[in-house]
Amino acid sequence: MGSTFGKTVKISVFGESHGSAIGVVIDGFPAGIYVDTNFIKREMERRAPASTNLGTERKERDIPQIISGVFEGRTTGAPITAIIANENVLSKDYERIAGFIRPSHADYTGNVRYNGYNDYRGGGHFSGRLTAPLVFVGALCKLALENSEIRIVSHVAQIGEITDRPLDLYEVSYNELEELTHNTLPVLDVDAGERMREIIEYARSRKDSIGGIVETAVLGVPAGLGNPMFDGVENALSAAIFGIPAVKGLEFGAGFGFASMFGSEANDEPFITADGDIETRSNNNGGILGGITNGMPIQFRVAFKPTPSIATPQSTVDMNTMTEQDLVVGGRHDPCIVPRALPVVEAVTALVLLDFIIQKEGYPTKNC
Amino acid sequence: MGSTFGKTVKISVFGESHGSAIGVVIDGFPAGIYVDTNFIKREMERRAPASTNLGTERKERDIPQIISGVFEGRTTGAPITAIIANENVLSKDYERIAGFIRPSHADYTGNVRYNGYNDYRGGGHFSGRLTAPLVFVGALCKLALENSEIRIVSHVAQIGEITDRPLDLYEVSYNELEELTHNTLPVLDVDAGERMREIIEYARSRKDSIGGIVETAVLGVPAGLGNPMFDGVENALSAAIFGIPAVKGLEFGAGFGFASMFGSEANDEPFITADGDIETRSNNNGGILGGITNGMPIQFRVAFKPTPSIATPQSTVDMNTMTEQDLVVGGRHDPCIVPRALPVVEAVTALVLLDFIIQKEGYPTKNC
Amino acid sequence: MGSTFGKTVKISVFGESHGSAIGVVIDGFPAGIYVDTNFIKREMERRAPASTNLGTERKERDIPQIISGVFEGRTTGAPITAIIANENVLSKDYERIAGFIRPSHADYTGNVRYNGYNDYRGGGHFSGRLTAPLVFVGALCKLALENSEIRIVSHVAQIGEITDRPLDLYEVSYNELEELTHNTLPVLDVDAGERMREIIEYARSRKDSIGGIVETAVLGVPAGLGNPMFDGVENALSAAIFGIPAVKGLEFGAGFGFASMFGSEANDEPFITADGDIETRSNNNGGILGGITNGMPIQFRVAFKPTPSIATPQSTVDMNTMTEQDLVVGGRHDPCIVPRALPVVEAVTALVLLDFIIQKEGYPTKNC
Amino acid sequence: MGSTFGKTVKISVFGESHGSAIGVVIDGFPAGIYVDTNFIKREMERRAPASTNLGTERKERDIPQIISGVFEGRTTGAPITAIIANENVLSKDYERIAGFIRPSHADYTGNVRYNGYNDYRGGGHFSGRLTAPLVFVGALCKLALENSEIRIVSHVAQIGEITDRPLDLYEVSYNELEELTHNTLPVLDVDAGERMREIIEYARSRKDSIGGIVETAVLGVPAGLGNPMFDGVENALSAAIFGIPAVKGLEFGAGFGFASMFGSEANDEPFITADGDIETRSNNNGGILGGITNGMPIQFRVAFKPTPSIATPQSTVDMNTMTEQDLVVGGRHDPCIVPRALPVVEAVTALVLLDFIIQKEGYPTKNC
Repeated sequence: MGSTFGKTVKISVFGESHGSAIGVVIDGFPAGIYVDTNFIKREMERRAPASTNLGTERKERDIPQIISGVFEGRTTGAPITAIIANENVLSKDYERIAGFIRPSHADYTGNVRYNGYNDYRGGGHFSGRLTAPLVFVGALCKLALENSEIRIVSHVAQIGEITDRPLDLYEVSYNELEELTHNTLPVLDVDAGERMREIIEYARSRKDSIGGIVETAVLGVPAGLGNPMFDGVENALSAAIFGIPAVKGLEFGAGFGFASMFGSEANDEPFITADGDIETRSNNNGGILGGITNGMPIQFRVAFKPTPSIATPQSTVDMNTMTEQDLVVGGRHDPCIVPRALPVVEAVTALVLLDFIIQKEGYPTKNC
Repeated sequence: MGSTFGKTVKISVFGESHGSAIGVVIDGFPAGIYVDTNFIKREMERRAPASTNLGTERKERDIPQIISGVFEGRTTGAPITAIIANENVLSKDYERIAGFIRPSHADYTGNVRYNGYNDYRGGGHFSGRLTAPLVFVGALCKLALENSEIRIVSHVAQIGEITDRPLDLYEVSYNELEELTHNTLPVLDVDAGERMREIIEYARSRKDSIGGIVETAVLGVPAGLGNPMFDGVENALSAAIFGIPAVKGLEFGAGFGFASMFGSEANDEPFITADGDIETRSNNNGGILGGITNGMPIQFRVAFKPTPSIATPQSTVDMNTMTEQDLVVGGRHDPCIVPRALPVVEAVTALVLLDFIIQKEGYPTKNC
Repeated sequence: MGSTFGKTVKISVFGESHGSAIGVVIDGFPAGIYVDTNFIKREMERRAPASTNLGTERKERDIPQIISGVFEGRTTGAPITAIIANENVLSKDYERIAGFIRPSHADYTGNVRYNGYNDYRGGGHFSGRLTAPLVFVGALCKLALENSEIRIVSHVAQIGEITDRPLDLYEVSYNELEELTHNTLPVLDVDAGERMREIIEYARSRKDSIGGIVETAVLGVPAGLGNPMFDGVENALSAAIFGIPAVKGLEFGAGFGFASMFGSEANDEPFITADGDIETRSNNNGGILGGITNGMPIQFRVAFKPTPSIATPQSTVDMNTMTEQDLVVGGRHDPCIVPRALPVVEAVTALVLLDFIIQKEGYPTKNC
Repeated sequence: MGSTFGKTVKISVFGESHGSAIGVVIDGFPAGIYVDTNFIKREMERRAPASTNLGTERKERDIPQIISGVFEGRTTGAPITAIIANENVLSKDYERIAGFIRPSHADYTGNVRYNGYNDYRGGGHFSGRLTAPLVFVGALCKLALENSEIRIVSHVAQIGEITDRPLDLYEVSYNELEELTHNTLPVLDVDAGERMREIIEYARSRKDSIGGIVETAVLGVPAGLGNPMFDGVENALSAAIFGIPAVKGLEFGAGFGFASMFGSEANDEPFITADGDIETRSNNNGGILGGITNGMPIQFRVAFKPTPSIATPQSTVDMNTMTEQDLVVGGRHDPCIVPRALPVVEAVTALVLLDFIIQKEGYPTKNC
C-alpha cells in the first residue's frame, strides 16, 4: 500500500529516481476518451525541468509511452499504463552518500520503514520525479472532464515573502485565467512574478532554496459532488495533495484566515441568480460545504516547503557509521519546486474530481 | 459511502442531530483492551457542551451505551458499537425553516446531494453532534495506544486574533503538557486563554461567532509508521481531520510558514542523541518525511471556521419557494466551537495512529 | 476489519449471539427509497426461526428498530442503522462449555484469532444469528432494486440426497417463481419438498443435522454490470456469500458440471430476439462473462454444511485444561439451516446487485 | 476498478492480448525479499504454453522484465513493476471478426460495458494471457512466504469424466507432494493423468475443448489468519480465484459434498497432538472456520469451464450488422486450459496468504 489511490479511478504509481523507468497504471478510467497526445505533451512540459529556466538542470524529455488501455486513439476502459524512461541517470553521484541522511528528505524514514532495503539513490521511490506520472494521469483526467465543463486553473500565490494578487474569481477576467495555463510561472500580477523569479535566482545563487504556495481553483463544478464526513471532496483532495512531495499545508477557501473571522463576516450568503440558480455572494468556503460541492468554484491553497536539497553544507548523520558528518547535497536541484509542482496539484485535483463525477454519473453502456 | 473510515480499524458513524440516537460501529479494533469507562466518560466530557460555559446551552449527557464488542470488561475483537441517545431534541424549532438554507451550513449541499430527501432538522447527519461518537472512538483508541506509549496533546492556538504561545516541544515542560489535558480551554499562556474567553463572550453578546486554530502534538511516535505517496501519515490524518465539521485548513510542522523560508532555515538537521538514537535539531517537518514518521513528535495545526449558526439576521434562500429571505438561526449554538472541537481532533488522530500501529505491529494470536 | 462490506453501499454488521443486541449500519444507501416496513417484516420472517417448524426452537421476534437514516418514511442518504434486540438469551447454557471447542464451529479459530478475548457464548460474533441484520439489509436493497426491475428468486435445490427439479429459467413459469417467494421451504417439485422435510425431521430425531444447497437466480439484470478480473459480479457475490456462516461452496451457471463438458456443449450461443436484443440459447455461464453481466439471468448455487451444533456426543478439546473431552452441544439448534439461509443468500445478492447498479447509474441530485 | 486487488499487498494488472505488453504493479510488497529469478522463471514456465504439448501453439517466452521495486537483487518495499512483452501478435487474424461475439467469451459483455470502445482483439484485457503477470506475482509471494514455511501444492483433480485420486493430506506422502510441483499435468494417479492427456488430445482432434477441476492445498498455515464474515480467508480467496478467467466454481473442504452429509459425519473433531497442538481428525472444513484458519491445511477445488475458443462452427451474432452468423474461432487455442491454469490458482492463493500473513505479522522496521 502507499502509491495506489482512488475509488472509481485507481492509480498505481511506480518507479524510482535512478531506476530504469517510472510510470503509472490507471484502472477504471472511462472508455472512449480521445487521447490527445499533444495536450498530454503540453501538460508534461509544464512540469518538465526543461520548460523553465527556474528548474533543475536535469533535463529529461519525459515522454510517456502508453503500453495498454488505448486502442485506435481512444481509451478502452481497460487499465491504462504509461512508462517514462529515466534517461539521464548518474547513480555514481549518489553512491558516496549511501548512508548519509539528506536533511528533510525521506532518506531516514525510508531506511527505517523498509528495514534498510529501500533504494536510496536520489530518494528512490520518494523522489519528486515520481510526480511526472501524476501529470500524465492529470492530463488524461482533464481530457475526461472536458465533457463536464470542469476547468482547473492555478497560480503561484507566494514565493518567499513575495505574494501574487489573490485569485478572486468574482473579479478575475476570463483572459487572465486563460493566460495562467500558458505560463511557466503563472501569476496574476506580472510584477510579483518578476520578483518571484528574482528571489528564486537569489536562492540559487546562495546555493539555497525557497518555499511557496500554489492556489488552485476548479470552475464549472456541479453542486452535489462528494459525500459527508470522511468521503467528501476536501478529504479526497487532501489525501491526494499530501501525496505530492514537499506539501506541508492545505487550506480551503478562507482556510486559516477563518481563525480570525467572525461568523457574520465568514458566512457565505446564498442568493438566486438571474438564471434561477442558487449561488453565494462570497466563497469563503471554497465551494465545499459538509464535504459536498455547492456549485461555487472549489478553491484551495497548498503550501510547499523549500527544496530540501541544497548545496550549502549541512550537519547530518551517516547511518552506516552512526557518526555525525557534514554534507553538501550534490546533483541538479530546483531552487524552488513551486512552479513545477503547480501542474502536479492540478493533476491530482483532476483525478479527484473525475472520481467524484463518476461516482455521481456512473458509466455509459452500449445498447445493442 | 461517506461516514466510514479506516484501514485496519474501520469506523462507521451514524445518526442525525434530531433522530433518536447517534453512534458508531468500530470494526477491527484490537482484542483484549480494557474498556476504562471512567476514562471514556472524561473524554466525552471534554467535548460535551456541559463541560464549559463557553459552549452551546444544549445540554446532553452523551453517555455512550456499548451494545457489542465488549465482554467481561475487555474488547473482544468483534465490532464495538456505541449508541448515544439524543435526549434533548426539539424538532419544532426547526420545522419552520425546512427550506431555508442556513448560510455556510450543509443545508443546500445535503439537499442537492440527496435529491431533497435529507433530514434537514439541525443539519441531520451533517451536524456537529456527530462528533460525539468520534470522541468515543478516540477514547478507545487512546486506551489501545497506551501500550505503545503514544500520547496526544493539544492546545487552542488561536481564537480570533488572540494567539497562544506556540507549542514548542523542545521548550515546554511535562507539567505544562499534562495540564493541557485537564483544561476546558487548554492554552500554554494563561493570559491568552483569558483573552480568548473574552472574545468568545464578545462574539456571543453580538449574536455572532468566531473561528480559531487547534494545534496538536503526538509524542512517543516510533519511526517508520506510514507509507509513501498517498498512504502516508499526513494523507490519513488529513482525510480524517477534514471529516470534522468546520475544519477548513491543516498544516504540518512549519506548514504555510514554509512558504517564506529558505531551505537552509527550513531543513531539520539530524544528530545522534546521548542514547544513540537519531533525532533532528528542529522539527519543521512535524515528525513526518515522505509520509513516514521519523520518531520526532507529529505536530500539526487545524483551522476551524466560525460556527455558521448565528442569531444575527442573514440573507438567504428558501429552497421551497425559491425566494430570497432573511433568516435568524434560532436554537442553541456555540459562539466558538474550537474548545469542543479540540478533543475531536485528538480523537481522529488517535484512530489514525492506532491504524498505522496495527499496520506495523499486526495482531497477536493465542498459542494453544 | 471483517464485518464491513461493500463499495458504494457499505454495511457494517455488529453484535453477538448473547450480547444485548445485534444490528447493522448501511452507509451510502440511496436517498428517497420508501421504507416498506411490511415488506421488511415479511423478509425478516422468512429467516426467523418462528417461520417454520423446521428451525430452531429459539423464538425471537427479530424486529429491526431503525434508529437513523430514515426520515418521513424514506431513506435520507445518511447511514441507516437497525438494531435487533436479543430477547431470549440464556448465557448460563453456555457458561459451562467456555473452553470446549464445539467441532466445526469457530470456537477455536475465534479464540486463537482474538488471543482468548473473544465472546465465546453461542459463538459470539460468529453466530448464525448475525444473519438477521443481513436480511434487513437485503430487504432494503430489494426495495431499492424495484426501480431497476431486478428480481431475486431461490429454491432449496438439495437437502441430503434429496434434490429439487433444477431451476431452468427457460422452462419455469412465472407462477412457479412467484410461489417460491411465499414458501418456507421453497421448491419446484412438491414431492421433493416433502421428502426434504422428512429427512430434516429424521436428522432432528437422530439429534443430528443435515446439509444442503440453495440455488438462486436474479432476473431482469441489465447487461454491462461489473468489471473485469477481481471486481466482477462473481468476485463480489462470492466475497459476500462466503460471509454467510456454513457456506462452503459456490458455483455459477453449470459450475462444477463444466468439468465434464466439452466446449461445444458448454458454450452459450448468442442469437437475436424478436425485440432485437441479444440473448443466448443456453445460460451455462449463469449470466456472467468476464465478470460482467450479459443480460441473461444470474444463476448460482450455494453449498451449506450441516449445522455443526448437534446433540450427539462428540470428542473435542477443552482449551482451558488442554484435555480431550466428550461434548454434547446443548441449546436450541436447527437440524438444517438451509431453508433459513436461503433468504440470507438473497439478501447479500441484493446488496451486491444494488452496489453494481449504483456503480453504473450513479446517484441522482436535485436541480434547484 | 477491476484489475486491482489486495489489502496490504495490492496488485494492478494491465495489458491486452494484442497490445504491446502486459504486466503488473505490486504495491506494498515486503522489503528485503531476495528475488530468485530462477524460481520466477520456473514458475512462469509452468503456465507458459511452451511448457506442455497440451497447450496452445502460441509460443511466447513470457520473461517478466522488472523495472521497479528491486535494488541489488532484493525488493525495496516500493512498488514492483514487471512487464512482459507480447512477442507473437498477429492482429490480422482477429480483424475480420471484429463484431462477432465468440460464444462464452467476454466479447459481448466487454462491448456493452465499455460502450463499444473495448479492444476486442483476442479478448483484449479479458484474455487468459493476463494470467501471466499473476504467475509472476505468485512467484514473488511464494518467495516471501518461504519464511513462514507456507507451501502450496495442487493437482489436476478432474478433466472431463476422468478424476485423479483425491488429495488426502492424511495419506499422501511428502514425495508425492514434491512431485506435483514438477509436473506439467500434476496428478497423484499416473494412470488418471494418462487418460486425461488422451481426452485432451481427443478434444483437440475434434476441434473441441474440455473442462476440469484444480485442487489446491496450502500446508504450514498458522492458525488465526483471517477475519470474520466478509473479510475471511474464504472470502478473499474466492474474490481472487473468480478473477481467473474460466473459473465458474469453488468449494472449500468437503464443499458441495456437505449437502448430502449429516453433521455427525461432517464435523471435524479436535484432538491434542503429541506436540501438544490442537488439530482435527478430519479436515472437511478445508482448514477454515468462521473465515479464520485453524492450522489444518487450507484445501479447495476450482472448477474451470472448457476453453470457449473452439474451431468447430458455432452460431453467433455479428454486433456490427446485428445479424446471426456462423463462426469458426481461428487462432491458436488450448483444448484444455486446466493444466496451465493450475499455477495461476496457486499464484493468487500465494498472494492472498501473504496478505493475511502481513495483516497478522505487520512489517519489520530498522532500529537505528
